[in-house]
Amino acid sequence: MDKLIEQIRNFNKERDWGQYHTPKNLSMALMIEAGELAEHFQWLTQDQSKTLNSETLGEVREEIGDVLIYLLNIADKLGIDPIAAAKEKILKNANKYPVNQAKGKIAKYTDL
Amino acid sequence: MDKLIEQIRNFNKERDWGQYHTPKNLSMALMIEAGELAEHFQWLTQDQSKTLNSETLGEVREEIGDVLIYLLNIADKLGIDPIAAAKEKILKNANKYPVNQAKGKIAKYTDL
Amino acid sequence: MDKLIEQIRNFNKERDWGQYHTPKNLSMALMIEAGELAEHFQWLTQDQSKTLNSETLGEVREEIGDVLIYLLNIADKLGIDPIAAAKEKILKNANKYPVNQAKGKIAKYTDL
Amino acid sequence: MDKLIEQIRNFNKERDWGQYHTPKNLSMALMIEAGELAEHFQWLTQDQSKTLNSETLGEVREEIGDVLIYLLNIADKLGIDPIAAAKEKILKNANKYPVNQAKGKIAKYTDL
Repeated sequence: MDKLIEQIRNFNKERDWGQYHTPKNLSMALMIEAGELAEHFQWLTQDQSKTLNSETLGEVREEIGDVLIYLLNIADKLGIDPIAAAKEKILKNANKYPVNQAKGKIAKYTDL
Repeated sequence: MDKLIEQIRNFNKERDWGQYHTPKNLSMALMIEAGELAEHFQWLTQDQSKTLNSETLGEVREEIGDVLIYLLNIADKLGIDPIAAAKEKILKNANKYPVNQAKGKIAKYTDL
Repeated sequence: MDKLIEQIRNFNKERDWGQYHTPKNLSMALMIEAGELAEHFQWLTQDQSKTLNSETLGEVREEIGDVLIYLLNIADKLGIDPIAAAKEKILKNANKYPVNQAKGKIAKYTDL
Repeated sequence: MDKLIEQIRNFNKERDWGQYHTPKNLSMALMIEAGELAEHFQWLTQDQSKTLNSETLGEVREEIGDVLIYLLNIADKLGIDPIAAAKEKILKNANKYPVNQAKGKIAKYTDL
């Protein structure tokens, strides 16, 4: 992943796009890309969403790439290590949703 | 990152939450979390978004963790390697936005 | 609806919030509010989403109010009549999705 | 607006699309359309977002139409009057953000 972050930095530096890449703009772009990812699933049933055809899977793969690119870019700009942040969040969630209470229950899960 | 993916799998398996984690639902959750991240920036100026106070930075860090958790979860369910997907997207974008044409220009960039 | 637009204008004028309400910021806020609305549905089945309990319905009602407030605000700032825009879009969609071809078919509908 | 709601109902009935239009799916579609609206603003400065060229303004107008269509559709499915919901939310916000405290202040406004 370090190499990917380096590639993102170089890509944007070469194009002088850093001026547009404020955390505010990047958070907006990230949400928009997440919307483009979700667009592929919006009219599918749950089951259909599990078995995409190869064309849709290819498009979804690209959108997942886009989301990761913007996520790493905003984290990089703010000096945040996203892997460490995710691991800490899992620990926090483990306390918030104890196995014996949360098992199979969606109600508590709604506000995750 | 492999270890993080393993942690996400275990966390959800222990709670029997896989039943809710269809690609469709996860794409929805990812977008919603991206919205929660963006919420911290919505009324800030571009400059303010670069220099968050430590409280906001901590909250933003948690949201970045959440977005990464859902992104890895949906990619895992679909058998997609998000790092590889991002690297391929950068190559594709490099062709789409050649340095000599895209340098400093936002117009072409709008539809990225 | 004209009265509602007037109320939104007055509310924001009294608080001197117009300075934050650029179309860019409002488009961001609108998307974030739409995310808060969707959050109530993210882990529900399709059937569960049709029969909300009264507490959830009350919360959903508030989020629908929020989305409409931001939508009218951004349209007002840009001089756009949202009702007229919606009516024109329906006419455009009627041409794009002729009844005899689109009837019951989700495929064509995906890119709506 | 009543006539618009009627047009939306007829449009979807003619195409037998009601089967896809659960509140869950509509909340997802609404968020995605809000993302498409925001996409037009993502790399613009605040000032640029106030003075769109006519081409962009036309596209933004269409997206505003789309957002309203989905908002009215989901409200209709849930038996919610969006205008009344918005008016009640303004009253609630007026209590939450008293003029003398909220005037010109963004801090309190962040969690609106």
